[in-house]
Amino acid sequence: MDHKRDEENGLDGNYNSEVETEHMKKKEKENQEEKEEEEEEEMSVERIFEGKEVPSWREQLTVRASVVSFVLSVLFTFIVMKFNLTTGIIPSLNVSAGLLGFFFVSVWTKFLDKSGLLKQPFTRQENTVIQTCVVASSGIAFSGGFGSYLFGMSQVIAKQSENAGGNKEYKNPTVAWMIGFLFVVSFLGLFSVVPLRKIMIVDFRLTYPSGTATAHLINSFHTPRGAKLAKKQVRVLGKYFSFSFLWGFFQWFFAAGDDCGFAGFPTFGLKAYKYKFFFDFSATYVGVGMICPYIVNISLLVGGILSWGLMWPLIETRKGDWYPADLPSSNIRGLQGYKIFIAIATILGDGLYNFFKVLGQTLLGLFYQLQYKNMSGVPPIEDRSSPRSSSTSYNDTRRTQIFLKDQIPTSFAIGGYIAIAAISMATLPHIFPQLKWYYILVIYLVAPTMAFCNAYGCGLTDWSLASTYGMLAIFIIGAWAGAAHGGVIAGLAACGVMMNIVSTASDLMQDFKTGYLTLASPRSMFVSQFIGTAMGCVISPCVFWLFYKAFADLGQSGSEYPAPYALVFHNMAVLGVEGISNLPKNCFTLCCVFFGAAILVNLVRDTVGRKRAQFIPIPMAMAIPFYLGPYFAIDMCVGSLILFIWQRINKAKAEAFGPAVASGLICGEGIWTLPSSILALAGIKQPICMKFLSRATNARADKFLGA
Amino acid sequence: MDHKRDEENGLDGNYNSEVETEHMKKKEKENQEEKEEEEEEEMSVERIFEGKEVPSWREQLTVRASVVSFVLSVLFTFIVMKFNLTTGIIPSLNVSAGLLGFFFVSVWTKFLDKSGLLKQPFTRQENTVIQTCVVASSGIAFSGGFGSYLFGMSQVIAKQSENAGGNKEYKNPTVAWMIGFLFVVSFLGLFSVVPLRKIMIVDFRLTYPSGTATAHLINSFHTPRGAKLAKKQVRVLGKYFSFSFLWGFFQWFFAAGDDCGFAGFPTFGLKAYKYKFFFDFSATYVGVGMICPYIVNISLLVGGILSWGLMWPLIETRKGDWYPADLPSSNIRGLQGYKIFIAIATILGDGLYNFFKVLGQTLLGLFYQLQYKNMSGVPPIEDRSSPRSSSTSYNDTRRTQIFLKDQIPTSFAIGGYIAIAAISMATLPHIFPQLKWYYILVIYLVAPTMAFCNAYGCGLTDWSLASTYGMLAIFIIGAWAGAAHGGVIAGLAACGVMMNIVSTASDLMQDFKTGYLTLASPRSMFVSQFIGTAMGCVISPCVFWLFYKAFADLGQSGSEYPAPYALVFHNMAVLGVEGISNLPKNCFTLCCVFFGAAILVNLVRDTVGRKRAQFIPIPMAMAIPFYLGPYFAIDMCVGSLILFIWQRINKAKAEAFGPAVASGLICGEGIWTLPSSILALAGIKQPICMKFLSRATNARADKFLGA
Repeated sequence: MDHKRDEENGLDGNYNSEVETEHMKKKEKENQEEKEEEEEEEMSVERIFEGKEVPSWREQLTVRASVVSFVLSVLFTFIVMKFNLTTGIIPSLNVSAGLLGFFFVSVWTKFLDKSGLLKQPFTRQENTVIQTCVVASSGIAFSGGFGSYLFGMSQVIAKQSENAGGNKEYKNPTVAWMIGFLFVVSFLGLFSVVPLRKIMIVDFRLTYPSGTATAHLINSFHTPRGAKLAKKQVRVLGKYFSFSFLWGFFQWFFAAGDDCGFAGFPTFGLKAYKYKFFFDFSATYVGVGMICPYIVNISLLVGGILSWGLMWPLIETRKGDWYPADLPSSNIRGLQGYKIFIAIATILGDGLYNFFKVLGQTLLGLFYQLQYKNMSGVPPIEDRSSPRSSSTSYNDTRRTQIFLKDQIPTSFAIGGYIAIAAISMATLPHIFPQLKWYYILVIYLVAPTMAFCNAYGCGLTDWSLASTYGMLAIFIIGAWAGAAHGGVIAGLAACGVMMNIVSTASDLMQDFKTGYLTLASPRSMFVSQFIGTAMGCVISPCVFWLFYKAFADLGQSGSEYPAPYALVFHNMAVLGVEGISNLPKNCFTLCCVFFGAAILVNLVRDTVGRKRAQFIPIPMAMAIPFYLGPYFAIDMCVGSLILFIWQRINKAKAEAFGPAVASGLICGEGIWTLPSSILALAGIKQPICMKFLSRATNARADKFLGA
Repeated sequence: MDHKRDEENGLDGNYNSEVETEHMKKKEKENQEEKEEEEEEEMSVERIFEGKEVPSWREQLTVRASVVSFVLSVLFTFIVMKFNLTTGIIPSLNVSAGLLGFFFVSVWTKFLDKSGLLKQPFTRQENTVIQTCVVASSGIAFSGGFGSYLFGMSQVIAKQSENAGGNKEYKNPTVAWMIGFLFVVSFLGLFSVVPLRKIMIVDFRLTYPSGTATAHLINSFHTPRGAKLAKKQVRVLGKYFSFSFLWGFFQWFFAAGDDCGFAGFPTFGLKAYKYKFFFDFSATYVGVGMICPYIVNISLLVGGILSWGLMWPLIETRKGDWYPADLPSSNIRGLQGYKIFIAIATILGDGLYNFFKVLGQTLLGLFYQLQYKNMSGVPPIEDRSSPRSSSTSYNDTRRTQIFLKDQIPTSFAIGGYIAIAAISMATLPHIFPQLKWYYILVIYLVAPTMAFCNAYGCGLTDWSLASTYGMLAIFIIGAWAGAAHGGVIAGLAACGVMMNIVSTASDLMQDFKTGYLTLASPRSMFVSQFIGTAMGCVISPCVFWLFYKAFADLGQSGSEYPAPYALVFHNMAVLGVEGISNLPKNCFTLCCVFFGAAILVNLVRDTVGRKRAQFIPIPMAMAIPFYLGPYFAIDMCVGSLILFIWQRINKAKAEAFGPAVASGLICGEGIWTLPSSILALAGIKQPICMKFLSRATNARADKFLGA
């Protein structure tokens, strides 16, 4: 099983939602076939669990769950942070979270059981509580913008783009203001979601594919047969986790200096390496490639070949004509500008297209809902062909009953929203003087509508458009503030406020769906999400701070942690505030072409039908290597290839254990960044440089070193 | 199944025979347990094959067999040559030869069968003919001394040792004289063996463990059940063959210059690398480690730690006292001298001990044979506890009948021996003026006895002592000729003459045993061996020539192909001719200690019993890393470890496919040396250097290269 949630993924959320959809479409088709067979099983889920008592909401919140949640939150925050700062592509970690949560508590309860101290058995409700807490917490690592808007305000990023508009505004991160900022904006999403809970899940009966998938996973873990498979999966995950961790550890020793070590391995030769075509032996991205659908990996590769294989070398031949020849390669008025702005244009084109598409679907859906007053039925927009049997009704009745038992008063939610909004209006201008209180007021007036739209759209299509909403905020607030009044910082900060609310809303609604399907109490879910959000507000800035202090060249283009989207967001803000006059020659024309192409390709994808669409690359995915280079796309294609061959050899095994292998690979190297950054902080440096020199250069170097 | 033949292996034969024995002992024990179960099967082998007609000896010699033999001979010559020139450790390639021979002809016949052109089915006799031809041919790659005496005469090697005695004699290899030399000496062994054939196999009923094992393999391939397993094994072999080949290919790109590429990977850090402790990612030696018994790999590692981890660093602290401080590291009067001569002393100690041990057993065995006139029974020295049943008698009767059918007249053999001896006495002094005709006459008078001893000893114990006989020739003829009359070259040439006869004798007798057990005609075997020897006499010098021309630093200490035994043999000759006066300080004392220790350890190994002996390292194996360093021992231990874990997980699978995996790894990288040397000859050089620098050096290099 392969479950994905994209709300974590942001820009990537946006892109990944595309991914999700691709993936879900496939899944859906498969599921429809399976549905008929599974119907009996599916229908009787609650009958199977009928004998098991549902613990009260207080009992679902255990100390062990909090401890496990905390440990997993730290783990996943590290991993998400690494993704934020390397490529910005964040794969779904829900399978890992589900598996590891189950694993930790299983071991714990088994241990206690043997020593006779076990008071409370491990239930699926508790598992859901852990799951939702981890998702809420590690979600902040994405929506906190450490790889996008927040880090985009820093001096490092501003410096890299300063030549574009001469704008020298910046706000460097510190732990204090980051935690404060996150605390005042992150809880708003939570409160805005609560009143909508019943409407979305019970009344509208939205699917929330990822939430549903997670619930299935958790349910399956807690049936005897499922637990056995889960244990096997956990073992496989553990094996690849260790391998990936040790591989990261081994690589470390050889990475003294730039371009040293396996990360700079010119697998296809030095010429190809110059244009970033190489396999960098990253277990993480091989794992990511195994999780992402084939078309995403292919899109990345196609984008990489188009840009670094074709366009940039061609533009380079115009050096001196299109852009000054004497600029350093990282200068945004040079080739770098083409890379960044063409990527932005493509992302914007794809994002806007999908924004309007989902908005249209949302409005259409709402229109049907309201017109037919089909409040407790299946929304007509959903094509559920199978008739509802009595067993399904039993499931529904039981789930709805539990779901409605522990209510959270709407007045409490609205009160909370207003209180936090007030606090935040009072405090945010102190953090960002450029962000006036009335900007915030406007955002907060619009935000609940946006949150509703996003949560509804996500429930229908599994797409979260958080970063698109964020980009809208950048352009609107940025333009309103204007260049003279710090529009760049104001825009980025506004983006943060908007993204946090919108992202959290869809995020948590998915969790409520999971809770609905596992009979977890909404009240325990709410508390767990509250705890998770609070944890995230502290953990994420601390982890980011660790990276920031440990890796001196964080955010530098071409370094180990280039944080690509920080520069993209910053330049978007600059573009919004200062216009296009500062772009290099022909750059704007190219941007327009790519903006149009992105829309066109999406249109084609939507019109040719699902079957053919899976052979057409996704513009959003193609744009990512424009700036970074295709090396990680090669890693991911290797992952795809491995999965493809595995599926050819043994489809069942590949389906069952592929996600576990991928998660292991991702988590192992991800968690290695913890000791690695601690080593960097302690001043322990890598001892050896594995260097790659051409034969001629090597001869020169040998002569020099010998002398 | 794991079948080994050590006659190919030489010094290594000598060492490997130790290995063999270790291995065979284990096998024997296992076999004894299996024997009881297998007895019914074993007994009825010839009953199973009863229906199958045995083709006439002419029919056994097919064109396809010659073609396949030729292809495999070239393949294995490359592999053996690589071993000769890298570490001198030559693993058994018989499993691969058997598997690949079966594979090639199977594919061929299947193809012909489908197209309706198949005239003759593939029989086990034909398989044996291929096997024996390949063994005869690739055996020359070892006994030709390209890694020992023959290359030891060259200027490259003489230069490295010239400071020891000021001796500047050398004879550089050329294809012409090498082929001539091999042709006049290699056939003598063949003729000397023929008259002994019946005595050894039918009358003495010697076991020849390796030959027997090979026969079992071939028999099992040609029963329907066996063929299925064989096909699976071939598939596994093919997979690892491709992997290993591609890995070798990949590594090539990064090996421009010294210490570049994976072969110079400081896996355990730069300090450890300086003392040759590193894993060099060689698929070949990982494969070798999987084939060699654990104790051999452990012995190598212990020897490496003792020498490079302890002794050499300690001796280095005496620099300026024990040896001049200003000598280059490769000078034999310096640290290099300790390395070489301590290794020689250990090898000699172990070799002489085993020589006298086997000689004693041989004489004892002969004594019993002759005393009891038990000419057609089982020699009492063999402990065959199982009573001979009627089925065994059937096997024996049938086999003996076939074996005696196609006789080769003894007069033909003796005539051939004398004729070739005469030719060789006439021609050899032209090749080596230092080797007088009367030296050769003496060798040829003694040689048949030696050949008999070696063939008999090998039949009993599976040990071939060819290199020990060769070393005796070095010392005796070298001393006789004396320093003034080119004793070094004379000794080395005499070693070649002796080794060729003695090695071929045991080699081919093993094959006759295989032929006996597979009902192959002795006459077809003889012809096949004749063809194989002739092929070997041409292929081996050509392959060596390719290496010699392609790799300019062949034989240089510390290079990719150091040919360690060439220097060892050369220095042995120098030592024999010029005495010990030129060794560095305390070196002779240390040599005596190690010579004594080698004998002592062997004594202990023989007295404590088999069970405990397997935990005591083998001196011969320990001596090899003294000169080369422990890096290949680490590779081999990795191979051991893989096999050990595999056996723990699935013993049956590891036993069935372990040798196939190992053979694939060995053959793949082995055959890569063919394209690699062709590339070198064509002047196509590796494009990239993967270099390993310390952090500080890297900073200096970067500064230099940047400027």
